[in-house]
Amino acid sequence: MTSPLTDFSRLCIHTITTKPWPLEECIENYVKAGVPAVSVWRQWLEPNGLDTSARMLKDSGLRITSLVRGGFFPAKDEAGRAAALDDNRKAIDEAAAIGAPLIVLVCGAVPGIPLPEARKQIADGIAAVLPYASAAGVKLAIEPLHPMYSDCRSAINTLEQASDIVEQLGDGHLGVTVDVYHLWWDPYLRRDIQRAGDTIFSFHVCDWLTPTNDMLNDRGLMGDGCIDIPEIRAWVEEAGFTGDIEVEIFSNTWWAADQTAFLDKIKTAYIEHC
Amino acid sequence: MTSPLTDFSRLCIHTITTKPWPLEECIENYVKAGVPAVSVWRQWLEPNGLDTSARMLKDSGLRITSLVRGGFFPAKDEAGRAAALDDNRKAIDEAAAIGAPLIVLVCGAVPGIPLPEARKQIADGIAAVLPYASAAGVKLAIEPLHPMYSDCRSAINTLEQASDIVEQLGDGHLGVTVDVYHLWWDPYLRRDIQRAGDTIFSFHVCDWLTPTNDMLNDRGLMGDGCIDIPEIRAWVEEAGFTGDIEVEIFSNTWWAADQTAFLDKIKTAYIEHC
Repeated sequence: MTSPLTDFSRLCIHTITTKPWPLEECIENYVKAGVPAVSVWRQWLEPNGLDTSARMLKDSGLRITSLVRGGFFPAKDEAGRAAALDDNRKAIDEAAAIGAPLIVLVCGAVPGIPLPEARKQIADGIAAVLPYASAAGVKLAIEPLHPMYSDCRSAINTLEQASDIVEQLGDGHLGVTVDVYHLWWDPYLRRDIQRAGDTIFSFHVCDWLTPTNDMLNDRGLMGDGCIDIPEIRAWVEEAGFTGDIEVEIFSNTWWAADQTAFLDKIKTAYIEHC
Repeated sequence: MTSPLTDFSRLCIHTITTKPWPLEECIENYVKAGVPAVSVWRQWLEPNGLDTSARMLKDSGLRITSLVRGGFFPAKDEAGRAAALDDNRKAIDEAAAIGAPLIVLVCGAVPGIPLPEARKQIADGIAAVLPYASAAGVKLAIEPLHPMYSDCRSAINTLEQASDIVEQLGDGHLGVTVDVYHLWWDPYLRRDIQRAGDTIFSFHVCDWLTPTNDMLNDRGLMGDGCIDIPEIRAWVEEAGFTGDIEVEIFSNTWWAADQTAFLDKIKTAYIEHC
């Protein structure tokens, strides 16, 4: 059992959750709504450039929970894999610049690359960039993605598998992200969360809708679907996690709605269903 | 490594694969095409009734690989669960009547029933009907379904989980179905297939398309997607499986096509990609 959430001190929102808002509107509206933390998607840094974006974020007083996202390591040729490493080092520079202590890794998958090979390329890629991250004081979190994404988004699909890589590469700067949307179905999730322990670097929430009409962009507001979020939160907290609870919702429906009203619904759902 | 398939002696087709054809057309066309075996979906028995359907199948000379499908155990009330048990006993009677040695179980899931509870109801349901199946000489195979179906179709989502239930209920009449579509992504699949060993009662093939445009009815013909079917077939054969290779494709695209031409494509894909 976990304690109900009674305030917003651990609430973090991903900029992609309010996709219609550019960085300045995310900052303005999150601050106005009393949201204390943000996870910044890299695309949100582009319009104003890195330095200006970093200053805007610093001036806002928002806590930066993570930069999203690195990864995408597998590629069909050596040049593609080298480009991926370069891009991950660039992400690490960006994280350091905006004061993000963590980068979330969506590890990648490519149709035509067999899964065992993709998984090897992922482990090799993480091993290659991890020293650079450590030197920058930036942590990396492997986010296992739902198995329905194993063809083209991530060949890392269970927490057990992510933890195997963390153990293999053994560095205090490498851990995992537990996202309830990707992992809620796993019959061995509690066991694997206990095993992950203090390598759980971040925790993402949203909900699984029935029916799900789009495999990528039909995620639900917490409480609108079938995931028992408080139970999974209890498990990560038993494992020692005390960090932010990050709301990451990809939803064509919500993106088409009034974002200020949506932000208000997020706050209500956070208290009632997380 | 497994040997290439050089003939159609192990080819089985599910009646739902050629959904536009009623039972009589499935029989006529499969026989004409030299397909030796069929897995019969229960809906195909309804138009002609059980006795007539059983006689048609017997007269056809087709081998009946399995009856599809039992299961769907979880329900919100006792009456619903009792009705599910009755329906499974009816399926067992049907299997015995048509000479099907096996029933495939799609175990069920219901939005609003938490997964741990659904999983308990599934194990209880299987335990309740297993003696009836054993007495009828009909085997039951738990088919783990892809995790994207854990909200409303099956709370059994990995082979490891299915084998845990098989071990728990321990009866030579209970085993598993390995369907490449549901399990191909699993990083521990080879290990779990070895463990399942001679409890692997059946083997289903199709392919995973990128993109997948419909979560239920956009499955691909073997070779059109990213699943390494020969590798998984090698694993089940290393584990001792020598049974039929069952083509089960749900596809709005293929169902809209000429079914005779589709059947021909299935045969080619079977030899080239299974």
